[in-house]
Formats: sequence, C-alpha cells, structure tokens
Amino acid sequence: MSTQYTFVNDEFVPADQASLLASDLSIQRGYGIFDFFKTLGGRAIFLDDHLDRFFHSANHLRLEVGRTREELTAIIAGLQQRNAISDSGIRMTLTGGYSADGYSLAKSNLVITQRALDGPITMECHESIRLVTYPHSRQMPEAKTIDYLMGIWLQPYIRQHGANDVLYHQGGVISESPRSNFFLVTADDILVTPAQNILKGITRMKILEVAPAFVRVEERDVAIEELRSAKEAFITSTTKHILPISQIDGHPIGQTVPGPVSQWLNEQLFQLVTLNK
Amino acid sequence: MSTQYTFVNDEFVPADQASLLASDLSIQRGYGIFDFFKTLGGRAIFLDDHLDRFFHSANHLRLEVGRTREELTAIIAGLQQRNAISDSGIRMTLTGGYSADGYSLAKSNLVITQRALDGPITMECHESIRLVTYPHSRQMPEAKTIDYLMGIWLQPYIRQHGANDVLYHQGGVISESPRSNFFLVTADDILVTPAQNILKGITRMKILEVAPAFVRVEERDVAIEELRSAKEAFITSTTKHILPISQIDGHPIGQTVPGPVSQWLNEQLFQLVTLNK
Repeated sequence: MSTQYTFVNDEFVPADQASLLASDLSIQRGYGIFDFFKTLGGRAIFLDDHLDRFFHSANHLRLEVGRTREELTAIIAGLQQRNAISDSGIRMTLTGGYSADGYSLAKSNLVITQRALDGPITMECHESIRLVTYPHSRQMPEAKTIDYLMGIWLQPYIRQHGANDVLYHQGGVISESPRSNFFLVTADDILVTPAQNILKGITRMKILEVAPAFVRVEERDVAIEELRSAKEAFITSTTKHILPISQIDGHPIGQTVPGPVSQWLNEQLFQLVTLNK
Repeated sequence: MSTQYTFVNDEFVPADQASLLASDLSIQRGYGIFDFFKTLGGRAIFLDDHLDRFFHSANHLRLEVGRTREELTAIIAGLQQRNAISDSGIRMTLTGGYSADGYSLAKSNLVITQRALDGPITMECHESIRLVTYPHSRQMPEAKTIDYLMGIWLQPYIRQHGANDVLYHQGGVISESPRSNFFLVTADDILVTPAQNILKGITRMKILEVAPAFVRVEERDVAIEELRSAKEAFITSTTKHILPISQIDGHPIGQTVPGPVSQWLNEQLFQLVTLNK
C-alpha cells in the first residue's frame, strides 16, 4: 500500500508520523473540537454542512480555525488526491494549541486524517443494535467537542448489559447516544427526535428534511417512558446512516426490525449520499 | 539553558520534541488522566500521595499504568537528574493510547514533564483572589481526568465578572474550583469543605490532617447560602497551597484577608513542604 498522509497545520505528513507536541491543550486539558464526513467515489458527502458545523463548534469553543472554508476545502482535496481512497472517512480536529501555561488557549492545531471506510453503504438496514440507557448529560452538547470521556468509560457497562451502545437521559428526558442521534416512531405513527441538549447531527438534519413526505415529524423532548410503546427506534450518524434498534434496556422495540419508517428513511439517505452531489 | 527533557513512554526526549501521535485517545476523544506534584530543593513533595492518586485515577478510567510505583519513582528521579531544576512542577499524564478505531482503549501513553515553578513558596499568603460561581458539575470528579473543557471555556466569563477563577455548584451545593478545592470558615468558626462530587486534592488532605489542632473541621455539603456569612474562605492546590478568597460573586468575604485560620494553615503547609521529607 502506498503511503497515506495526514494534514497537520500546514503540511501533509505520513499518517504514521502525524503528531502533536505534548503541550497541546487536547492532551493537557481535553480541549478541542472535530468534525467527520464521508467520501464516496471521491465525493465529499454533505461537506458544506460539515464545514458549517466545524466552524460553529470552533466558534463555540473560541478556537480560531485560521483558514477560510475555501482553504479548508482545498486542503481536503489535496489530502484526497494524495491518498486516493475513494470511499473514506475524513476527520478534521482542531485543538486548543501549544499552551505556554498548560491552561490558556494558544494558536489552534489543525489535524485532518483520512481512512478507508470499514464497510460499504447499503440501501438496506442489515444490522440492528441493542441500547442500554444511562443517566448523563454531555457538557456543551451543541458543539462537537472531543469530550467522549463518559462514552468510552461506559464500554464495559454497555457490554455487561448485553448492549452495543448507550442512550443518555437526564431527569427522565432522552438526549442522544455518544456518537449518534436518536429517533423513535410512536404508537400513533409520529417520528420524534429530541430537540435539546444534543449535538445536531448532519444525518439527523437530512432525515428531518426528507421524513415529512412519509411520516409526521416532531422535534421535542422525548420521555424515557415513550420507549416502551415505540413502534420503531433507530440511531443516526454519518458512519451508520440509520441503525435500527431492536432492544432498549432489554425490552424489544416494535414488531419487525427494521420497521417501515426506518427502512424508508434509510433508502432516502442512501439515495441522497450516492446519487446526489 | 541546557536541554530540558520530557519522558515519553520509554525514553527521555528533548522537551520541545515530546509528542504523541494524532491517533492518541486524548487528542481524539479527550480520554486521559494526570497528576501533578512539586519538587522543592530537589525533593518530590508528597510523592507517595500523588502516586496513590495517579494509580487511583488510572484505575478508575481503566488505564494501565504499565509500571510499578518503584519504576515510576525511578523515572521521575531520572528526569530530575537530567533537568536539574530544584524547584519544579512535575506532571505525569496517562492517555487512552493509539487507538486503531479512534474509540477503543489501546496501550496507554505516559508523558512526564518537568518545568520550573513560577514563583517561590512562602509562609505568608501574599495574594487573594475573587471567585464567581457557576452551575456545573464535573463528570467523574473523583478521578483527576484531563477534562477541563468547562474550566477553560469559562475564562472569558470569569474575566467579565471581575474574578480570577470560578467556583462550581449544582443544586445549591458547592463542589470545587476547576483546579482547586474549596474551604470556608463559618460564622461559628468551623472550617468546612465539600465532601462529595470533588477531586480530593493532596493539599486538601494535608489541611484536613493538620487543621483539627487549631479549629473544628467538617467535611460535608456546603450550601451556596453559607458563602454570605463566611468569616474566611480559601482554595487549595498543589501549586497555590492556600489562596485566600476576598470576594465571591462580588460580595466581600470576612473582615481581613487572609483571616487567622487561612494564615495558620498556610504556615502549617509551608512547614510540611519545606521542612518535612
């Protein structure tokens, strides 16, 4: 395999040598943001939306991106050209920089990595997952920070409960999974998704755009009690698109998995990412 | 100045070249722990206590230190010998490692840095600070994680309120400052400090050991209303020892700053760190 490259600040370096000094505020203080998008057949999917969110997250954490959208786009194109991976995930990370005192923000460090996708994107939902709920609210959920302390820490808890991922709730209100948004279809056929204390995913946004052609949609608080009567439930992310949920806290969800709404939405997403520009 | 060194995993490298690969889980996901202690005249102060807490934090986050206490102690001695900084701060950072999938824990990375202290340790409290309260509870406060997202993010808020640092509370109960423990002396001369949802500082522990010779002490929940009637208040940390508080949310604390309890305790700490082994 030819050398793969990573972009660090102002140069492309071999991916296995891409590094940050130990004084970086991500290493010292967990301070940074990122975004992640796919390329399919070399096309960067929903790049404008991901750039919007990247700048939004940076702004929220008071990190200077230090490049225009056009410059970032050119860097990403340069990375794709060097690496020649047509179906990939590209991650842009922006950190608090090399801090003189280990606490104050410095000039941000920018790292852009690319790697091949694990598997193909398909029109059918081939898998389903089991979730376990956990009382937690991410700090600053509206920004895509690098804070996944709780999500990673809960991995053994998730396994012990026979689950694949966790679903956060606080005060009886559901928010999100660590790397995914949450949707359910109610007993009276309404597609609902939490509106507050979440990271607003790009896949979530696309679903909210296309879904009203097929189903009534509500963005609102979702009570944990609504899980029991849900006809369908799924999580969404850039990597997974729609991933149907078969069980939450050991209770089965719906009659068939995937249900009709999940399946229809996944087909729409498939068409959006594979056919559209 | 001669080259300063940092220890990274299994070697001493020049401090300005000490780095971690971008795949490290601290950079990717903010996952790591650390500890920090002083050396004075070349003696590592309360090293056993800091090693205890370092192993406790690592264990809590399921990170393997990969070295015994004796090995760590030898590495620290080697770093001190190379750098020859008699009065210094030494920071040991342990991260989630170079993760293949950017989420699962890998072999931990260990970084140990040393740098000169900013100023001398003194027997008198020369400074005092102003705090502003903020509703927040750190996730996993009992472990010394690298999660300082909120503390750093609040720096402009702190400045806008004419303060030097923030004091967290949740549901009317005070916990801690981002890098310090909190104490107050009540109107009836009891030294109180929060007992829950805090990182148990080494300086805090030393104060709880020596204070009963001078004042009645209680570890318990501290209500935010108690701030108004406090005779004295101070924060404690390895760097600052005791730092008296002159104002909280714009309201003055006590008659004279530092008050007699703060001053007596600071003298005791000074003696502990300068005279004892």
